Amino acid sequence: MAQYVYGKNVVRQILNDNKKIYEIVIGEGFKDKEILKLISASKAPIRSLPRKKMDSLLKTEHHQGIACSIDEYKTYTLDELISTIPEGKLPLFVMLDGLEDPQNLGAILRTCDCVGADGVIIGKHRSVSLNATVAKTSTGAIDTVKVSVVTNLSQSLQYLKEKGFWVVGADAKKAIDYRQIQADVPLVLVVGSEGFGISELVSRQCDYMAALPMVGKVTSLNASVACGIFLYEIYSKRNPVM
Amino acid sequence: MAQYVYGKNVVRQILNDNKKIYEIVIGEGFKDKEILKLISASKAPIRSLPRKKMDSLLKTEHHQGIACSIDEYKTYTLDELISTIPEGKLPLFVMLDGLEDPQNLGAILRTCDCVGADGVIIGKHRSVSLNATVAKTSTGAIDTVKVSVVTNLSQSLQYLKEKGFWVVGADAKKAIDYRQIQADVPLVLVVGSEGFGISELVSRQCDYMAALPMVGKVTSLNASVACGIFLYEIYSKRNPVM
Repeated sequence: MAQYVYGKNVVRQILNDNKKIYEIVIGEGFKDKEILKLISASKAPIRSLPRKKMDSLLKTEHHQGIACSIDEYKTYTLDELISTIPEGKLPLFVMLDGLEDPQNLGAILRTCDCVGADGVIIGKHRSVSLNATVAKTSTGAIDTVKVSVVTNLSQSLQYLKEKGFWVVGADAKKAIDYRQIQADVPLVLVVGSEGFGISELVSRQCDYMAALPMVGKVTSLNASVACGIFLYEIYSKRNPVM
Repeated sequence: MAQYVYGKNVVRQILNDNKKIYEIVIGEGFKDKEILKLISASKAPIRSLPRKKMDSLLKTEHHQGIACSIDEYKTYTLDELISTIPEGKLPLFVMLDGLEDPQNLGAILRTCDCVGADGVIIGKHRSVSLNATVAKTSTGAIDTVKVSVVTNLSQSLQYLKEKGFWVVGADAKKAIDYRQIQADVPLVLVVGSEGFGISELVSRQCDYMAALPMVGKVTSLNASVACGIFLYEIYSKRNPVM
């Protein structure tokens, strides 16, 4: 099935990647020269629309005057995720337990691209899907980071543990300091939802919990911020500064 | 001037802090027992509203059924920010150059609370103000982290440098690795806007730039995620794990 995605970063990356585009929608007054040049080089049909019509087609005002219709985002099985890890690389997956905010998912995909994570695992139920908001806030990472949508998060962790992965939960309960994470093994980092944290069943599969120190009044960070700090800590341990 | 703020975390913290409340607005069907208990203990006038009316009063659907009217958020001068740094503490300020997204500002205030930063500096022009979205996404940190709104960011940095601060820009151009930041001095961390980075005038006041390594296709992180990684790196250097 085709779907509309929007925003300059998203459309630019799709054009650069020569992905199959069913239609490009340009808003009145859209002026980005780089993107217009890419569009004129592509063979996709173009439709020009007044901004108001574009708002109602895309059901948002945050399209920056540019959109395109493409195939739905591909997702992968766990085995596909595992089989595409480059030889010799220490694997790193991120599992999101119950995350519902598409902007957070987009920001997390973006960070995963930056640290070279090998995939993101989300649950089929109670989770956000790979929609246009995710695509836009990921600034293109939705195309570079592989996402696996699984029926059962807890069973998936069990499977990954059999394959040699260690599972670290980002959670404050009975946790070690996040700087004590052992990073020189294949890792799955589990991040819970804002407000509810990691669910009971999933937390039982975690080998241990790790937490960020917090010295103020607030008791938790935004999920994508917390995930970013964990991922860069793991990246740092694996790639020390020379 | 009074303003409405909304969301469970925000209203709970305001009630807990015994802040002056002009009115509490409760949406039909609102059930959070902890907050209702706090409300019944407060003396503020209460108004019950159907959800639709509440949406239009607050101009959003994301109020979680609870709002209150309070005085506008207090801001501080640079000197007030400096004078309230606890004796013996290594100062840490965050300057946001051109940040326009209220959700990012809220998330950054939240992280600043968690690492004990001493204040956030934003510009009067081209910046987001302390509104209800900022309050909600800050989950209460808008009340615990001091914000200074200045006319001229570049001059403010000059002033802070005269007071002994070092200025580090979070920017990829001519940058050292972020793990090489020298943290044992009073610091201002400057974070640029998404898309435009740090402006020319402000970057001239930076003593040096520091950047996050990025190994993927995406060339930048979400501003609040990047800010969080920098802040926890500085926190870590100042407070090593025992």
